[in-house]
Amino acid sequence: MEARKFVFLFEEGRAQDRELLGGKGANLAEMTRIGLPVPPGFTITTEACIAYAEGGDEFLRGLMGDVMRALHSVEERVGKAFGRAENPLLVSVRSGAAVSMPGMMDTILNLGLNDETVEGFAVATGDRRFALDCYRRFIQMFGDVVLKIDHAKFEEILESHKVRRSIEHDVELDEEALWQVVGDYKELVERETGAVFPSDPSEQLFLAIRAVFRSWDNPRAKIYRQIHKIPDDLGTAVNVQAMVFGNMGADSGTGVVFTRNPSTGEREIYGEYLPKAQGEDVVAGIRTPQPIGKLAEDMPEVYEELLRVCHTLEEHYGDMQDIEFTVEGGRLYLLQTRTGKRSAAAAVKIAHDLVAEGVIDRREALLRVEPEQVARLLHRTVDPSSRTDAIARGLPASPGAACGVAVFDADRAEEIAADGRKVILIRPETTPDDIHGIVASEGVLTSRGGMTCHAAIVARGMGKPCVVGCREITIDLEGRSFSVGDTVVREGDLISIDGSSGEVMLGEVRLIDPQLTQEFKVLLEWADEIRRLGVRANADTPEDARKSRQFGAEGIGLCRTEHMFMAPDRVPVVQEMIMAETEEERRAALDKLLPLQRGDFEAILEAMQGLPVTIRLLDPPLHEFLPNLEELLVDITRMKAAQEAGQTIDRELLAEKEDLLRKVRALVEFNPMLGHRGCRLGIVFPEIYEMQVRAIYQATADLLERGVDARPEVMIPLVGHAAELKILKDMVERVAREVMEERGVEIPCVVGTMIEIPRACLTADEVAEEAEFFSFGTNDLTQTTFGFSRDDAEAKFLHHYLHQKILEENPFAVLDRDGVGELLRIAVEKGRRTRPDLKVGICGEHGGDPSSIAFCHQIGLDYVSCSPYRVPVARLAAARAALES
Amino acid sequence: MEARKFVFLFEEGRAQDRELLGGKGANLAEMTRIGLPVPPGFTITTEACIAYAEGGDEFLRGLMGDVMRALHSVEERVGKAFGRAENPLLVSVRSGAAVSMPGMMDTILNLGLNDETVEGFAVATGDRRFALDCYRRFIQMFGDVVLKIDHAKFEEILESHKVRRSIEHDVELDEEALWQVVGDYKELVERETGAVFPSDPSEQLFLAIRAVFRSWDNPRAKIYRQIHKIPDDLGTAVNVQAMVFGNMGADSGTGVVFTRNPSTGEREIYGEYLPKAQGEDVVAGIRTPQPIGKLAEDMPEVYEELLRVCHTLEEHYGDMQDIEFTVEGGRLYLLQTRTGKRSAAAAVKIAHDLVAEGVIDRREALLRVEPEQVARLLHRTVDPSSRTDAIARGLPASPGAACGVAVFDADRAEEIAADGRKVILIRPETTPDDIHGIVASEGVLTSRGGMTCHAAIVARGMGKPCVVGCREITIDLEGRSFSVGDTVVREGDLISIDGSSGEVMLGEVRLIDPQLTQEFKVLLEWADEIRRLGVRANADTPEDARKSRQFGAEGIGLCRTEHMFMAPDRVPVVQEMIMAETEEERRAALDKLLPLQRGDFEAILEAMQGLPVTIRLLDPPLHEFLPNLEELLVDITRMKAAQEAGQTIDRELLAEKEDLLRKVRALVEFNPMLGHRGCRLGIVFPEIYEMQVRAIYQATADLLERGVDARPEVMIPLVGHAAELKILKDMVERVAREVMEERGVEIPCVVGTMIEIPRACLTADEVAEEAEFFSFGTNDLTQTTFGFSRDDAEAKFLHHYLHQKILEENPFAVLDRDGVGELLRIAVEKGRRTRPDLKVGICGEHGGDPSSIAFCHQIGLDYVSCSPYRVPVARLAAARAALES
Repeated sequence: MEARKFVFLFEEGRAQDRELLGGKGANLAEMTRIGLPVPPGFTITTEACIAYAEGGDEFLRGLMGDVMRALHSVEERVGKAFGRAENPLLVSVRSGAAVSMPGMMDTILNLGLNDETVEGFAVATGDRRFALDCYRRFIQMFGDVVLKIDHAKFEEILESHKVRRSIEHDVELDEEALWQVVGDYKELVERETGAVFPSDPSEQLFLAIRAVFRSWDNPRAKIYRQIHKIPDDLGTAVNVQAMVFGNMGADSGTGVVFTRNPSTGEREIYGEYLPKAQGEDVVAGIRTPQPIGKLAEDMPEVYEELLRVCHTLEEHYGDMQDIEFTVEGGRLYLLQTRTGKRSAAAAVKIAHDLVAEGVIDRREALLRVEPEQVARLLHRTVDPSSRTDAIARGLPASPGAACGVAVFDADRAEEIAADGRKVILIRPETTPDDIHGIVASEGVLTSRGGMTCHAAIVARGMGKPCVVGCREITIDLEGRSFSVGDTVVREGDLISIDGSSGEVMLGEVRLIDPQLTQEFKVLLEWADEIRRLGVRANADTPEDARKSRQFGAEGIGLCRTEHMFMAPDRVPVVQEMIMAETEEERRAALDKLLPLQRGDFEAILEAMQGLPVTIRLLDPPLHEFLPNLEELLVDITRMKAAQEAGQTIDRELLAEKEDLLRKVRALVEFNPMLGHRGCRLGIVFPEIYEMQVRAIYQATADLLERGVDARPEVMIPLVGHAAELKILKDMVERVAREVMEERGVEIPCVVGTMIEIPRACLTADEVAEEAEFFSFGTNDLTQTTFGFSRDDAEAKFLHHYLHQKILEENPFAVLDRDGVGELLRIAVEKGRRTRPDLKVGICGEHGGDPSSIAFCHQIGLDYVSCSPYRVPVARLAAARAALES
Repeated sequence: MEARKFVFLFEEGRAQDRELLGGKGANLAEMTRIGLPVPPGFTITTEACIAYAEGGDEFLRGLMGDVMRALHSVEERVGKAFGRAENPLLVSVRSGAAVSMPGMMDTILNLGLNDETVEGFAVATGDRRFALDCYRRFIQMFGDVVLKIDHAKFEEILESHKVRRSIEHDVELDEEALWQVVGDYKELVERETGAVFPSDPSEQLFLAIRAVFRSWDNPRAKIYRQIHKIPDDLGTAVNVQAMVFGNMGADSGTGVVFTRNPSTGEREIYGEYLPKAQGEDVVAGIRTPQPIGKLAEDMPEVYEELLRVCHTLEEHYGDMQDIEFTVEGGRLYLLQTRTGKRSAAAAVKIAHDLVAEGVIDRREALLRVEPEQVARLLHRTVDPSSRTDAIARGLPASPGAACGVAVFDADRAEEIAADGRKVILIRPETTPDDIHGIVASEGVLTSRGGMTCHAAIVARGMGKPCVVGCREITIDLEGRSFSVGDTVVREGDLISIDGSSGEVMLGEVRLIDPQLTQEFKVLLEWADEIRRLGVRANADTPEDARKSRQFGAEGIGLCRTEHMFMAPDRVPVVQEMIMAETEEERRAALDKLLPLQRGDFEAILEAMQGLPVTIRLLDPPLHEFLPNLEELLVDITRMKAAQEAGQTIDRELLAEKEDLLRKVRALVEFNPMLGHRGCRLGIVFPEIYEMQVRAIYQATADLLERGVDARPEVMIPLVGHAAELKILKDMVERVAREVMEERGVEIPCVVGTMIEIPRACLTADEVAEEAEFFSFGTNDLTQTTFGFSRDDAEAKFLHHYLHQKILEENPFAVLDRDGVGELLRIAVEKGRRTRPDLKVGICGEHGGDPSSIAFCHQIGLDYVSCSPYRVPVARLAAARAALES
């Protein structure tokens, strides 16, 4: 251990030594190394912190020799001496781990002051009041963070002196008063610790370093590391640096700059500057900082130097920097530099521009932009400056923000929207009967339901913002209002919702429109060059299809057909089909649906011409198209009660309702998610699927005749056994052949299956005998693999699981690699064993999640499919996955 | 091909040649070989059938040389000649594949007759009318099965002759009439086929053999083979055999005997005998056969010979035989022998006795008894002689038969049962409020629900017969009756249900009590010597525990705790617990449950002393303990309607009901199967599980103090992630430690998990870090792996799947090896990789299914656990699995 070097002067380190010196220390060393003006100092390594955990105080005492030697070197550089009465050297002591971590001891300033040195410091600065105030603050800071004396006790003493002198602000305390405060502080320390305040600067330094080391193992830091899986043996470094003072007269000051605009990404220096001040004053907020331009006026040479420094640092690090600086007596000092945080828009522009400037290459640029971040560019967002406090919060069911007047039923929503006003539809939950209201609205808010409730699915499908399951609001449908606590929102009141955060806000907030800037487009083209994964979109309408093409989708990976059944003009026919008692009656209703479905498919296939469109046959259980059982039950009970009370009622209506109730009861299921849906419908009612398949191939034939290159692929949902797929594939091929013969055209017949049942993964070798492609429906596969009903889990226990860290992530948002991912791996491996050219994609919501996309890349999928708005995210994520693998 | 031998005289074959000669041919050869009196004949091999499929008629023409040579050999043996006018040889032609198969051509008798030979045959038999009748029958049979002429057309001709002569029965037709019929038949054949009826016996034989060969590929046989996975290239053999006539005078006759009593297994010859008759006459049912004893009176020597033959055949085949014989002119001929079908009781007794007699060994005896068959011995069954037609049929939810008076509510059931009358409880569906009624009843019948509805679970748990989901009955609760079509059953009417078949019968049927005979016990002991798998029982009550011990269970593999929560005296406390708004209130209610649970566990652990008892912590979602939402909704709607109509109502009651409705609504789930249940309850409400664990260890401490060797094992249900198990295992160990310290005892703390979620299987290596045992809950695992809600699947689409043969078996009855089984394999392999001594069992219903048990043996499970009544089945099945592997 003796041989190891634990103390590094800033001149001795470099940026790459981050693990050894911590982030802050490594950057200070790097800046020193490349000749930038950094107040001299040194770093005690993270290894010393770990050695301390074993060797304790004895180790640290031994280390102090090295520390003092380093300090002498600093003394020489600055021409001051630590602990000497005349022109004493004061230092700051800061912790700095490789990763930043809350709960760690942070900073002690002005270390080295005592009753003697404070007077020398007073002489050197020419301001005794300032020196005494530094002394007071030093004792308070040291007492708090090193000696663990309750901060409030110091504040009490300070307060009592202000009261005694009837003054309001700290700055009004004069030298005598400050001297008394210092005395009282020292008494407090003695009382609390049983020892006098350490006046020896070396002892102060020893204690401060020890406090940093110890804070590595305080409970808060430990828990944080546990949660974030940060190893315990990383340790933190300690930076000891000569103090500089931005408040030493008119030619001093302090500030923070970004090397580019962090909001827009424009190449311009951006930041704040406070003359005659220290960093602490900025934090205290007593004075308002000036824009950085003020520095150019006050000290043009310093400003010029700062511009040069910004340029140097940005070029050196190859990225936009966030820099802290201080000017002391007309001299610029750099106290910190780090990669600057930036908005999504800025991230895109900076990455693009740095390539244009030759600073980084395209691959590096792609790694600079977080896909999740750019997702924000693709929805309307709330302008942060106009955001108001949320009055309630629900589940963020469909991203984007929207404003409008509150409306509580679908018909009214349509009426008011027809008047040209924007509307937010608010319902306990929505049903197919509300579709026209959703269409007419800017966004939807429900008090019940989960991420897969009707409102959520429909809104996501339409790309409308939606907040569901907002249990805090109580809706009074009759009174056309909702309330949260004392707040009541009535029909016509303006409200705003943010479907990305789940927030509900009063009034109208300003919205920022999504934008695909030129730079963003260029970046995505670079991504396309690099990625191996294809990117398709989940789209059910021609509008969505067109949108996804604009966003760069290479096909439709999931075109759901159930929303076509839910259109308000079709629900009666669909209900007729369901209520049919015989196959004949059912076929009659289906005959009415056929031309409508054909129209749907024709429009979508035309919008996507030249690209594949994977159409999934009907998936949801039939009872989803019928009225709500509870409502029927209440209606019937009411009518019967009226009848019993001797009132006349519409007997025919009652009989009709009772009939409907019987059918609903017959269809209602205990666990609809695991019920009679997907291909199970196609097996039991083949005529439904036949109608859909006929519509698909008729539409294709129409298009081909018009010279439009339509490319349908038929996807059978919820297959669990190869035999299901075999039967339905035979049916598809038979019907397709019939249409081809009727129309005299040839259409390639591509049939595959959605893999969303564990059994299908486990027997993928058999399923692949029948399937030309697999598309993983990871929403349902996650439900079955975990045994989680998504709606129930999110409402009842998933938050506990995330809170208790049983699960790291919501598995419906980020693909669970160990469980669901293992099934995907098995399915890909077995499927390709049977059919080496099997095309495999994913069309669950995970298809738009960057981490999940990376996994899809790893296991060799051919494409991902996601909502139109996430196509750019997926293109970027796919490129990054290729770069990182 | 020339080199192959296609025709085997009976003297040339043996029993082992079944594949080549078919079952019938091989047994005829075997009997011939060991010197028994079989009419001579020969077999054309199955290979010839396959060769015919390729070579067609040309091949068969070539083969006829061999056939005729074999026929000459037969002629020599019997001293008759085929096709000769004087004393002609007549033969039968029968198909005989290795496995019997419907749709195959079966039999042609009397082949060889024509206008000439019939006269010779008349002379030989001395009965011209009989000879002509044989001729008529031969043409009809040949025309039907070989020439494919509609059977009805022959019947028409016959009928017209009877009408013309005003006679009623065929036997009244005289020689002349028969001769005319023969003429008309031949005309019909010529009209239908365009060719005269083949009079050349060799041509007749050629055509008959060809018809058998061709029938192998008829559509019905092909589909049957496809469904039963019988290879298409097996082929069928053809048996050609000299006719013998049991109707050739007083010293002739025909009969069927079993070598032992097929009902009881007693060692006695058992069968029927019809003097002066042929087999056909027995089938026609014109005369009633005599018991076999009659033969002893009529022809004592023949009878003695038959006894000797029976003994020889039984000893030779080592099993009870089913023998067809004919006596012609005082001579005994054997026409067929095969292994005799027998009742469950007989199967057990015969297997046991054959060992005692030294005919077979113990291992062979175990292979002779089908486990599924003996299951029938373990429940009360309907005496077949008293079975009446079912008026309705539901799902067979809990096996066994029961009779009693129909009662339509639980309170009445209790009252009437208290009067000493047997009761069948009939409800639309049951709830926890009905438990006392179920307890009081002999059996339960519901019109709704599936195999896992409340009634089904509770009844199975109690071992009471139960039929659920009997949709054909319409229950009128107010009228205390149910109806099926025109039949109305009122309270007090006697009915019977059979929970093994799902049948509902009017009136009282006689029941047969289950019996564990001495022979059965001995057989099971032999099974215990051989099996490797342990056998435990699923039992929730001390009674079930005792019963399962009697049946030989080696522990309890699944003790569910929810039924304890459902006991009528506890439901209010459980509801109090659920309605609690704070953890404190919940704990108060749990404190009341603690002593009750402790009592439950103490009784069960004591009953099973010395054996392990795996106790599963609470599993079902809490809303299962609350009243039904719909009923509440109707009540509230009614009360409100009354209020609106100006009536006075109990406002407090309304408020209470509304409160309850709110709670039910808050708890109700979209998919309860995938909802907030199992360990998810334990994570969110740890106090519930803590109470249960405390009760388990307190009960154990009490028992140990009393010197009772109690061995609890705690099982955490529905684990999907190792972290869930870790948290709960830590809790179990902590609470157990607390109890041990309070009580000053040491109790081994065994904690494991139920594996019933695919994710648990896929991550079994991680789960095994925390689990000392796995117990596969294959009911839920089947639901999640298939994505089938059992209740919904069985009601809505599973029958379609079984009917269309998409699934071979109901996966809830027979473990699906490819899907669910694959997950089991993965879990065993990964689990034991982490923990080589991991104990692995199965406690789903599959644990009592023989085929599933065989699979459990194959993949190396340690034990199976099943309902008490199936323990003997499992012991036997486990032994057979060991023998067969």
